[in-house]
Amino acid sequence: MIKTDILIIGAGPTGLFAVFEAGLLQLKCHLIDALPQAGGQCSEIYPKKPIYDIPGFPEVLAGDLVNNLMEQIKAFQPGFTLGERANTIEKLEDGTFLVTTNKGTQHNAPIVAIAGGLGSFEPRKPLIDRIKDYEDKGVSYFIKDPEVYRNKKVLIAGGGDSALDWSIFLADVASEVTLVHRRNEFRGALDSVEKVQSLKNLGKINLITPAEVVGLKGSGKLEAVVINKSGDQDEEIIKEIDHFIPLFGLSPKLGPIADWGLEIEKNAIKVDTFDYQTNIPGIYAIGDVNTYPGKLKLILCGFHEATLMCQSAYQRIFPDKKYVMKYTTVGGVSGFDGSKKEAPKAVVKAID
Amino acid sequence: MIKTDILIIGAGPTGLFAVFEAGLLQLKCHLIDALPQAGGQCSEIYPKKPIYDIPGFPEVLAGDLVNNLMEQIKAFQPGFTLGERANTIEKLEDGTFLVTTNKGTQHNAPIVAIAGGLGSFEPRKPLIDRIKDYEDKGVSYFIKDPEVYRNKKVLIAGGGDSALDWSIFLADVASEVTLVHRRNEFRGALDSVEKVQSLKNLGKINLITPAEVVGLKGSGKLEAVVINKSGDQDEEIIKEIDHFIPLFGLSPKLGPIADWGLEIEKNAIKVDTFDYQTNIPGIYAIGDVNTYPGKLKLILCGFHEATLMCQSAYQRIFPDKKYVMKYTTVGGVSGFDGSKKEAPKAVVKAID
Ligand SMILES: Cc1cc2nc3c(=O)[nH]c(=O)nc-3n(C[C@H](O)[C@H](O)[C@H](O)COP(=O)(O)OP(=O)(O)OC[C@H]3O[C@@H](n4cnc5c(N)ncnc54)[C@H](O)[C@@H]3O)c2cc1C
Ligand SMILES: Cc1cc2nc3c(=O)[nH]c(=O)nc-3n(C[C@H](O)[C@H](O)[C@H](O)COP(=O)(O)OP(=O)(O)OC[C@H]3O[C@@H](n4cnc5c(N)ncnc54)[C@H](O)[C@@H]3O)c2cc1C
Repeated sequence: MIKTDILIIGAGPTGLFAVFEAGLLQLKCHLIDALPQAGGQCSEIYPKKPIYDIPGFPEVLAGDLVNNLMEQIKAFQPGFTLGERANTIEKLEDGTFLVTTNKGTQHNAPIVAIAGGLGSFEPRKPLIDRIKDYEDKGVSYFIKDPEVYRNKKVLIAGGGDSALDWSIFLADVASEVTLVHRRNEFRGALDSVEKVQSLKNLGKINLITPAEVVGLKGSGKLEAVVINKSGDQDEEIIKEIDHFIPLFGLSPKLGPIADWGLEIEKNAIKVDTFDYQTNIPGIYAIGDVNTYPGKLKLILCGFHEATLMCQSAYQRIFPDKKYVMKYTTVGGVSGFDGSKKEAPKAVVKAID
Repeated sequence: MIKTDILIIGAGPTGLFAVFEAGLLQLKCHLIDALPQAGGQCSEIYPKKPIYDIPGFPEVLAGDLVNNLMEQIKAFQPGFTLGERANTIEKLEDGTFLVTTNKGTQHNAPIVAIAGGLGSFEPRKPLIDRIKDYEDKGVSYFIKDPEVYRNKKVLIAGGGDSALDWSIFLADVASEVTLVHRRNEFRGALDSVEKVQSLKNLGKINLITPAEVVGLKGSGKLEAVVINKSGDQDEEIIKEIDHFIPLFGLSPKLGPIADWGLEIEKNAIKVDTFDYQTNIPGIYAIGDVNTYPGKLKLILCGFHEATLMCQSAYQRIFPDKKYVMKYTTVGGVSGFDGSKKEAPKAVVKAID
């Protein structure tokens, strides 16, 4: 069982920044995310696109913003349960919460902060017979650890940025990369499309288009796929592979959280703007996942909400302590790793 | 008369970022600040100190944050009335507001956003006979335009960072720089103290300590100061100079705004967290200057408040238009200077 002070569901920008604000109050955080990496929508949907409305950044790539936030919270050593979805919540007798994921991992904390954004990112799965039987036995919808594919035969399906970018990346890792797409046209960043074209010309990526994977073969684990290649005459190809990775995008689903007894409005969790707490004391909702009068689904709003939330969480955990806020410039930042960042102090010195 | 859409009182980080959010809604802004430069507390009190809790910046100097914000809002061409204090507000018949400064400059706008921080920064003035008569006639408490002092004889009084840093800066501009301080010890950044020491050794700064300016002389304008230098035997020095700049720090005063009929609590303006509007419709209060349940006087909170405020201001100005928020990444940023920032578009391209 993982124990922490604040259990954060969702490792998007809001959840990540909450780690920092909690850390300033010397509270520890652990994050759960359905995705294999931190960053929420920024990492999953538009990592290479610029954002213009993060205060102080005339322009920042969404992926760089996430990297900066990871750097900013590093000293507070957050824990991560990635690639798992928070499924159930239970209030224990001691007043703390027990949150269990779809893979059975248990988390216990006095405070739960839901920073679930538009919901848990769930892959769009192709409609192929018996695909469920092969999940984690050769079929995966995310790439969690690219090393799994070293010297393996990999087949990626899809026509967007993920399919393009992972084909490029795995061309150097896997023994064979095949990219299958329904059409000849791909939709993505120009340089990604051009890179795939040149890897194809070099023979480092096999391209099969327009085509679809229509069947899976193998006993116990995936051994081959059946591909239907359209043309004047449709053609059926049977291809031996170790891994089939359909990358047809992810769609966010509020999912199980909708059944946690929280007040929901417009597919979001209702909160009070005093501290962004939900109708269940001790459970907060911050960032895109919440709603209140005037709510805007913007990253900078999530940062503010996370900050006020942490103050309230502190009061719940330590009802008797009076916390006096100190500016970071004045008080510095003391990490759980023993690090201390501090502004250079003024000196008092004679000039003679 | 200066006319604009949103008149912002206070050019601290909150007021500056409001320009950006207003600009996204195609609303123009003009800022008034009592200080000669933008940036509020960040520029005036701690420009060279690091801030650690600006989201996405593991560390940023307060002055750099201000520079970044200025860069971020540049395309929205804000107007500035600097070095003047907003003194009075009047509601005109057409429902717009007229704001007049201590120097008589008039500003007219349908929306007023008070981003006044801890208040208008007012210099601490030394108690010297008739000093008022010499104000702007040789005596100034701020340095607005250093070029005014080119090839002039300047005397600075004070023992902190401002006195040190301006002495260093003007050593290259003025024909003569004298620094007077009550004590031999200065309090400031180590490198500033050391730099003054070395400029003194080089004869580029005259140092008179421990000493005080006790009198002013000159008819029509300042011509000399009387300095009392303490020692075994006190000594009176009369020194011919063109400019006397006492830099004894600034203290913020809510000042005239306290009399504008706004609901005040704990020396701050009460607002509703729906849109950070005050009890007077059309007047908003954002950043350190406001208060509401849970309020934290942090820069990142001011950013959020400015953003929600602008949405509400837009609705007031255009009650019949329905504004649909677009992410900057998706809609880009169109400046009033004709510039357009935009994310590179995805291409749809065949690979063959
Ligand atoms: C194309 C695009 C452009 C955008 N441009 C801008 C912009 O310019 N400016 C701006 O401010 N915003 C922009 N946004 C919106 C911005 O990305 C979101 O406001 C921001 O990501 C919200 O952050 P968050 O942390 O609240 O949630 P998210 O980023 O959505 O992260 C939530 C995370 O929670 C996880 N999660 C949810 N439920 C569960 C569960 N039960 N178990 C485990 N994990 C769960 C999800 O998998 C997800 O990773 C844009 C969005 C898109 C899609
Ligand atoms: C030493 C120090 C360290 C700090 N460290 C941090 C930190 O680490 N993190 C953090 O988030 N915050 C920190 N702060 C606080 C932070 O600087 C403030 O929250 C922030 O500056 C508030 O911004 P603002 O724009 O609301 O107001 P301000 O920065 O106070 O600006 C308000 C401006 O309005 C002007 N004004 C007011 N009334 C009038 C008037 N009637 N006419 C004309 N002009 C007027 C003032 O002259 C001033 O320039 C620190 C503050 C100090 C002093």
